[in-house]
Amino acid sequence: MARTISGLSVRDIRAPTSRTLAGSDAVHTDPDYSATYVVLKTDARDTLEGHGITFTLGRGNEVCVAAVRALQHLVVGSALESIVADMGAFWDRLVHESQLRWIGPEKGAIHLATAAIVNAVWDLYAKVERKPVWKLVADMTPQQFVACVDFRYMTDVLSRDEALEILRRKSSTRAAREAQMRKEGYPAYITSAGWMGYPDDKVRQLCREALAQGWTRFKIKVGRDSAANVHRAELVRQEIGPDATMMMDANQAWDVGEAIEFMRPLARFNPLWIEEPTSPDDILGHATIRRAIHPIGVATGEHAANRVMFKQLMQADAIDFCQFDNCRLGGLNEVLAVLLLAAKFGVPVCPHAGGIGLCEYAQHVSLIDYICVSGSLDNRMIEFADHLHEHFRDPVVVRGARYMPPAAAGFSIEMLPESLDAFEFPAGREWKK
Amino acid sequence: MARTISGLSVRDIRAPTSRTLAGSDAVHTDPDYSATYVVLKTDARDTLEGHGITFTLGRGNEVCVAAVRALQHLVVGSALESIVADMGAFWDRLVHESQLRWIGPEKGAIHLATAAIVNAVWDLYAKVERKPVWKLVADMTPQQFVACVDFRYMTDVLSRDEALEILRRKSSTRAAREAQMRKEGYPAYITSAGWMGYPDDKVRQLCREALAQGWTRFKIKVGRDSAANVHRAELVRQEIGPDATMMMDANQAWDVGEAIEFMRPLARFNPLWIEEPTSPDDILGHATIRRAIHPIGVATGEHAANRVMFKQLMQADAIDFCQFDNCRLGGLNEVLAVLLLAAKFGVPVCPHAGGIGLCEYAQHVSLIDYICVSGSLDNRMIEFADHLHEHFRDPVVVRGARYMPPAAAGFSIEMLPESLDAFEFPAGREWKK
Repeated sequence: MARTISGLSVRDIRAPTSRTLAGSDAVHTDPDYSATYVVLKTDARDTLEGHGITFTLGRGNEVCVAAVRALQHLVVGSALESIVADMGAFWDRLVHESQLRWIGPEKGAIHLATAAIVNAVWDLYAKVERKPVWKLVADMTPQQFVACVDFRYMTDVLSRDEALEILRRKSSTRAAREAQMRKEGYPAYITSAGWMGYPDDKVRQLCREALAQGWTRFKIKVGRDSAANVHRAELVRQEIGPDATMMMDANQAWDVGEAIEFMRPLARFNPLWIEEPTSPDDILGHATIRRAIHPIGVATGEHAANRVMFKQLMQADAIDFCQFDNCRLGGLNEVLAVLLLAAKFGVPVCPHAGGIGLCEYAQHVSLIDYICVSGSLDNRMIEFADHLHEHFRDPVVVRGARYMPPAAAGFSIEMLPESLDAFEFPAGREWKK
Repeated sequence: MARTISGLSVRDIRAPTSRTLAGSDAVHTDPDYSATYVVLKTDARDTLEGHGITFTLGRGNEVCVAAVRALQHLVVGSALESIVADMGAFWDRLVHESQLRWIGPEKGAIHLATAAIVNAVWDLYAKVERKPVWKLVADMTPQQFVACVDFRYMTDVLSRDEALEILRRKSSTRAAREAQMRKEGYPAYITSAGWMGYPDDKVRQLCREALAQGWTRFKIKVGRDSAANVHRAELVRQEIGPDATMMMDANQAWDVGEAIEFMRPLARFNPLWIEEPTSPDDILGHATIRRAIHPIGVATGEHAANRVMFKQLMQADAIDFCQFDNCRLGGLNEVLAVLLLAAKFGVPVCPHAGGIGLCEYAQHVSLIDYICVSGSLDNRMIEFADHLHEHFRDPVVVRGARYMPPAAAGFSIEMLPESLDAFEFPAGREWKK
């Protein structure tokens, strides 16, 4: 363990996904899936590195790169041992740096950058311990788990003692759930059959392929054209049949009243949830929509900036599904906080994934949720999109619509050197085409 | 008017205020008041420029500089005439750029950068019209005013028609309020007597000087040391006497339960408000605190990211005073939206100021609020701090604790070239000392 973080490097990695409209939705019409890619080096002889990313849509990735550089003085020069001895304090130091917090606080580019650095520390920590991150956390005592969490701004709804109690209740049955996961994997749903910009025949074909692979839960994109929404829902429902689960995603396209209106003609397709029906900041708006469209569920979180937003989404009974993004929350420490909040409020966690590296992160987090925190799979599933996994050293393994637990040490986020070189912006080979 | 924005330059300007602890509070212990400084040039012969800033605390200013560069393609090359013909659409284009919005949306570095660019456009527009910005807006018809506002995510509580009606009600009496302002100025309160890091004797002396200058409303900083809070409140109350108004500012130092506890021993000093008692994102937390500490008011806003947050702070009855920051909201267009929300909910607007350039901006906005929107001065005042005004070409004029309306064309934000050179980071003279 004895080693000091001796250097941090950060690269601007972008995949030109907008050329195929993969990832397109009502609001993000042309995403280039991108990563602000962080590598921590140490002074140890074993040359282990900590890798971490934040995910962006292309332009603006360079702003996150600048934000990583702004934070690096808080990690370079620190001993890994002293960091992991008090992970909560380490996290607080990054998030509440006295000058940098102004450009957040706990939101936007600086918080996205925090996630990349914090998760790189976890990757390094897990590699040193020779465990995947999910297993590292699953082997922690409830006290060790809780020590990773900064309870600032949460204590009105969740005290440290209450968090300990949540973890202790599931503690004695952890081993059985871990064994179950190793055998069966964690349930998933698929998004990549239904991107907004794909033509009908492509969607049909992708639905058929996904069904053949064992997928039973499908998400489609909806937007501001009501007739197009109905058309797409009808087409996908025809393909997947009445028993498969359909989810819908508006990606913030609507105002509160519009969300209620736009969902009316879509109710007959029996969606499990409508995701991001309006502004991700509108807690009370989500609560209003949820009351109006019952029994369709409301899901959100990929743009919810921090645990304070999730706390309120749950306090206000605004969501049926909690969909944090592992790069938008400030790294695993804050994710653990939100897992605890979700357990307290009984809200199922279905992490946002897709993008680049998000599936790789999400599998660890859902395993931690099941094994240590919620102990439940009810209404819980990880998003899956079938893009860009080939660039990872330890890509996700999905069998029969289930994520199989990663076995390699670390956070599964390390990309292949040749992919990093090819996609580096703007000098990489893919950007010179 | 016919001119095209032909170039944008951006500079990293920082004042080493941490050396004197000016601006220090419980959370921001060592701010270096800084500006991401934007200049728009045009192809017109008159060489008029648009200047705009966003305010930061030092480290991280370079991240905002990067964010400005990321946005510049949305303004450079545009005709000013086409921008001002549909200001709402222009604003929406910046804020919802399909890739950049991911690193917000509408929050953090990208939104701070948006403010600098948007307000630089307003500065240019007002200079072309040969009016100060407040007068430019005060001369708009209600329709023109409303056309500057993007109602996205607000229509559940404020429609365009309702906004028009709010403005029309005050329309016929605008001239009288404008004349009153030119004569009397706009009321203010002073913060710079009570910075956290100042010793007792300095605070005493600054209170005495401020009283002699006519100040009757004073804000002090409080924090996590209850005895120190009481000591400071007692000292300032002794100096300013029982009739002067005292406000308190916790700068997010407390959790919800702590805020209620920490305010208990401070109630006897009769504070008008407690400002930022907890996380700026915690709408429901502010509402809980407000109910618990009545009749002490709750104020917040300098860290509230956007109009959606203000909408909810008002919907939830969480605040008695609305304190948006003119650089944190995405420029004047979004400020106008929040002025309309505040008028609808009857919440007085007391803009955050101090820092660098914030007093200069705030005076325009409060004049617009009084003349066009709220028509009221009840419980309304602009913050004032006596730092760094000497670096502005058209600095605020405060007489008898009132801001006198600026007369020069533009947004009063243009800094002196020699100050920009001296404070440029890291190469300027002040940083080589």
